[in-house]
Amino acid sequence: MSITAKTIQAERGKSFFDINDMDTFMNGSEYIQRRQKSLKIIKSEKIFDQKDVYFMSRTEKIEKGLMQEKRVVELLREGKIEPKDVSVIFDILDWSAAFELTRAAFIPTLEQQCNDDQRVAFLEPALRYEIIGCYAQTELGHGSNVRGLETTATYIADTDELEINSPSLTSTKWWIGTLGVVATHACIMAQLYVEGRHIGLFPVVIPIRSSDDHKPLPGITVGDIGPKMGFNAVDNGFINFNKVRVPRFNLLQKFITLSKGGEVSRPKNINPRATYGTMVYIRANIIRNMGRQLTKGITIAIRYTAIRRQFGEPGQLEKPVLDYDIVQYRLIPLLAKTYALIGMSHEFTAEYEKTAALVKQGDFSKLKEMHAVSCGLKRWTSNVAIYGVDTCRHVCGGHGYSMFSGLNEFFANIYPNIIWEGDNFVLAKQTAMYLVKSAHALMNRESVEPNSTTNMIRKFLNFDNMIPTHDLFTWSTKSGEEISMDNNILLDVLGFKVISLVYSLHELVYKKGLGWDELSIQSQPLATAHSEYIVCLYYNRKIETLPLNSPLRPILDILFKISALSFVTRDTGELYSLEKGASMNRNQVAGLEEAYIKYIKLARDQAVPLVDALGVPDEKLNSSLGKYDGNVYEDMMERVFQDPLNRVESGDKTRKRLYDNYISPIIHYKSSKI
Amino acid sequence: MSITAKTIQAERGKSFFDINDMDTFMNGSEYIQRRQKSLKIIKSEKIFDQKDVYFMSRTEKIEKGLMQEKRVVELLREGKIEPKDVSVIFDILDWSAAFELTRAAFIPTLEQQCNDDQRVAFLEPALRYEIIGCYAQTELGHGSNVRGLETTATYIADTDELEINSPSLTSTKWWIGTLGVVATHACIMAQLYVEGRHIGLFPVVIPIRSSDDHKPLPGITVGDIGPKMGFNAVDNGFINFNKVRVPRFNLLQKFITLSKGGEVSRPKNINPRATYGTMVYIRANIIRNMGRQLTKGITIAIRYTAIRRQFGEPGQLEKPVLDYDIVQYRLIPLLAKTYALIGMSHEFTAEYEKTAALVKQGDFSKLKEMHAVSCGLKRWTSNVAIYGVDTCRHVCGGHGYSMFSGLNEFFANIYPNIIWEGDNFVLAKQTAMYLVKSAHALMNRESVEPNSTTNMIRKFLNFDNMIPTHDLFTWSTKSGEEISMDNNILLDVLGFKVISLVYSLHELVYKKGLGWDELSIQSQPLATAHSEYIVCLYYNRKIETLPLNSPLRPILDILFKISALSFVTRDTGELYSLEKGASMNRNQVAGLEEAYIKYIKLARDQAVPLVDALGVPDEKLNSSLGKYDGNVYEDMMERVFQDPLNRVESGDKTRKRLYDNYISPIIHYKSSKI
Repeated sequence: MSITAKTIQAERGKSFFDINDMDTFMNGSEYIQRRQKSLKIIKSEKIFDQKDVYFMSRTEKIEKGLMQEKRVVELLREGKIEPKDVSVIFDILDWSAAFELTRAAFIPTLEQQCNDDQRVAFLEPALRYEIIGCYAQTELGHGSNVRGLETTATYIADTDELEINSPSLTSTKWWIGTLGVVATHACIMAQLYVEGRHIGLFPVVIPIRSSDDHKPLPGITVGDIGPKMGFNAVDNGFINFNKVRVPRFNLLQKFITLSKGGEVSRPKNINPRATYGTMVYIRANIIRNMGRQLTKGITIAIRYTAIRRQFGEPGQLEKPVLDYDIVQYRLIPLLAKTYALIGMSHEFTAEYEKTAALVKQGDFSKLKEMHAVSCGLKRWTSNVAIYGVDTCRHVCGGHGYSMFSGLNEFFANIYPNIIWEGDNFVLAKQTAMYLVKSAHALMNRESVEPNSTTNMIRKFLNFDNMIPTHDLFTWSTKSGEEISMDNNILLDVLGFKVISLVYSLHELVYKKGLGWDELSIQSQPLATAHSEYIVCLYYNRKIETLPLNSPLRPILDILFKISALSFVTRDTGELYSLEKGASMNRNQVAGLEEAYIKYIKLARDQAVPLVDALGVPDEKLNSSLGKYDGNVYEDMMERVFQDPLNRVESGDKTRKRLYDNYISPIIHYKSSKI
Repeated sequence: MSITAKTIQAERGKSFFDINDMDTFMNGSEYIQRRQKSLKIIKSEKIFDQKDVYFMSRTEKIEKGLMQEKRVVELLREGKIEPKDVSVIFDILDWSAAFELTRAAFIPTLEQQCNDDQRVAFLEPALRYEIIGCYAQTELGHGSNVRGLETTATYIADTDELEINSPSLTSTKWWIGTLGVVATHACIMAQLYVEGRHIGLFPVVIPIRSSDDHKPLPGITVGDIGPKMGFNAVDNGFINFNKVRVPRFNLLQKFITLSKGGEVSRPKNINPRATYGTMVYIRANIIRNMGRQLTKGITIAIRYTAIRRQFGEPGQLEKPVLDYDIVQYRLIPLLAKTYALIGMSHEFTAEYEKTAALVKQGDFSKLKEMHAVSCGLKRWTSNVAIYGVDTCRHVCGGHGYSMFSGLNEFFANIYPNIIWEGDNFVLAKQTAMYLVKSAHALMNRESVEPNSTTNMIRKFLNFDNMIPTHDLFTWSTKSGEEISMDNNILLDVLGFKVISLVYSLHELVYKKGLGWDELSIQSQPLATAHSEYIVCLYYNRKIETLPLNSPLRPILDILFKISALSFVTRDTGELYSLEKGASMNRNQVAGLEEAYIKYIKLARDQAVPLVDALGVPDEKLNSSLGKYDGNVYEDMMERVFQDPLNRVESGDKTRKRLYDNYISPIIHYKSSKI
């Protein structure tokens, strides 16, 4: 047994808790079952082996992804898997393939916007994979601002058709997933014109490639948009329409009716906030996903730093790098945040589902806070996960830079989560506006929907000084160490940091009269503080579902404290500058910083069992460094011989060509000129 | 003319200074001449066109790089370029190719470690490219800790040879640039044993591939280590020795003599600090390079955000995103830091050259500070540049994620600068140790070499309270706005932030008795604060070389203030917690933050001219978004048709295969099962 394998085994022996119990608590038994089922399929079919992905060109990746999609559709048709399993399979394969955006955007749009006849014509064949569609909104020159979109759909009364046109270069639809080489249909968002009148932006379904030979239909220019930082098994594409005609029927008509002859009407019982709900739904999925993605990064980094050795006492084995303070300081808080993210996402999902159920009944009362929370958490979770994965790569040292680390293609694939569905810097304003407006209403004693956010604001507004300062600012007379020991006080500090930033912004808006466009900079720290508070609040709730004597509790509690303290001490200027009676002094801050490091050290020995309990299989890690059995270097050596440049025959041939054409002429040229 | 081209032209019209004068001031006329000469060559030969790089597989990249290397060697042999031009050419081509590590590591090692006979045998043919070598130190299981290296070189007296051996899997040399498919020779670092005695780590030159057919010589297993995050035109390789014999002569013998029969001696006049000098030299190159690299990122981001439009007033053109506060807040300070980095690097280089000249004369007095400063600046400049490029990508929105942005392969290629030549987190300790030890010596009134760092420490130690507090803490009675207006006060604040952190660490070391291994966390903010101080100090010196009435001064001064204020306000906890008489209050901090935003806004209109003046040619940018002429979307559309998936014939064939094999069988399967 190699030293590295022995080392990781010894780490596992240090566990104070049962790994399976923890897996069940964190992931839930339903997910674990689905994971096991998918894993079994992946292990049994060569087509799902992802080891060769790191050697592939873009075209090879698209082909491999398509091959897998085809097999997945077969498994569905054979009844061996359910539609719900598909995302779990691709989650373990750890990439998105060619049909990703059919499932994630085309089908959901049809579900929301088709009338009954259109469901039969479009949605049902799409669900049966008889048509493969994409959802085309973004244009080359236009992103988030949908009003800026240029593509037009003009009603032609004579033939009862719509004419789709791209009036300029910048109106070319761009970035459309599943469009580049795959899609048979596109659902495009276009500016609808009827009898010269601009009606608004609406979706139109357009057949784009011939069902005989897949060639573009007349008037259509379509192709792939080229290589990207990541996501290269998906064929993001572009499309341009030169006066393409489709039947009027192809305008999706749930939220609008266009009748023969050009009469436009809209159903009455449509609440404009319904679309608001869609954005919340998409962001909720990102939030849940980000925690799950971070599990991969942290598993690789913890396992590898536990076995990678550098320096140490002379004459002894070098010291595992995870034993160094500076490595612990970078990794353990990230492990704690991974637990916080996954823990909180259960509570968040419950809140989300409550809200969605109410919306279905026409009750939108919870939607505003859900929107604000989900904007904030989309921003916060994607930042933490993506730059967390970057930290994971960095602590792996040189080998982190190899594709075999599993962290590079992965980083590139999850990166766009900070950009899409609302750029992270833009989203902050949404959260800040809700907070400041709620505070303003409360200050004016207006009635405000009670929820986690407004309850906290109300508490600290402390009307009529009901609560003495000393009880309100629970931390004020405590030392840093005392604060760190009490989860409720930590939550109070995190909550009041939010309130303090809300007060500042409130003053700028309501006293100095600044507009929200002028407050985008100040909105950033507020959105961050709010998300940190919500994450701790929800994660704490999740922990409290365990019995008090649960053996899982002690370590989960330590992880809570590490997360909370990392947020509390993140910007100590925020602590020093709190209002009188609430602000902290140097000793308190120093005490908090010491406590933070103390808890990090306490968690060190549980790090390997804690990542084991997250249940990320080797198949998803696709990493030499993160291998469960610790045989890191053996795995690297094995992978290296699969490299195209090293392969027997094909590699020999390549190397011979390189030598004959370039190296040999250089070294065999005799001269002393230089 | 497109709107985007018009927009960028209008931006250029706002310039308050002469772009060529600024280029000359920042880059120096020698560099500009070399850049122009190289650019002319690059433009005139198709082989140097890098547009196809984004579509290439790893093997294709290596081949293209080799092709270019061959041409460069020809140009050298034809006398059309000098050796000094080579790095400028590859800097504009914006990648490292196959011979990179021959030039950057193999040849410098030979230059330092060969005796006279060895110069003739190894160095001269290497300079003539008749042998291509690599420098092999790192092993699969061993990185920075050279004592941990396992490869052995054992002297065999019988045959007067050295036997090179790799005793384990982990002893395999790994990550060695130019080794994977190219090198004919390796200079390896091995543990030297003579008559059973361990002598130490020494370099040995080993022929590794046959000069007839380039096949590995007997006993040698060699290959490429596979794909990496970036740097994929370089063939990083691995090599393993099974008792390979070379003549004793191949042990490089400048710092050791091994005579026939096994007598070992070392020359007497060798100062152990000489190797110290090599590390400083390599880090100094990284420091100079990081500023130059950031110019590419910032040029792309400023130009694209100036023409990219999003939202705005109804009925008007959308607003350029660079007009939004939150975009300015992320980009303008980065532009300011780019200027600070390049500006300071002239002063830094002057300091470095002074130190190197003294070292040559046997005077090591300046080496300690140079070592501390260069560790700190290597860490700081690489962090700023790499995560700065990431910010540049993020502000470009969705298109930043396309390879055509020019920012993705680039980010991946410069990324390892945070890891190699001392991991950034490890380097912090080197700087912190020097600072704390110098302060300790000064506190004990010991004599200490005067330099920028110790002068500042001495000033604030303020022996015998020579300076009244009020004059020492120049900022203490000033408002935030007043502080921001005086560059010397800003430098004082930055300097005292360093001192304050030095005091804290000094107490932990000399009063609480903590070891440096326990202070790695606390060393990070100190190293950061010190680099920020040095950068501002050196950049300010560079500005002060201009006449007072120079038209370049006003904008350079604004950029100085933006950099300094970004450092001052980076962690306001550091300002609140300064000692009594020095600490700042809420109003001062708020005033500094307001001033910071004010100066950012002042620089906004000069942003495009300022990046123009950095002189980065389109050939280096290799970016649709950063195009000088502003024709961004036209360029994207042009590039897209070069994509292998879209090409006429070859692309058609690929798409047909994908359709026939995967898409058609899926969509034409008729069933209603799912």
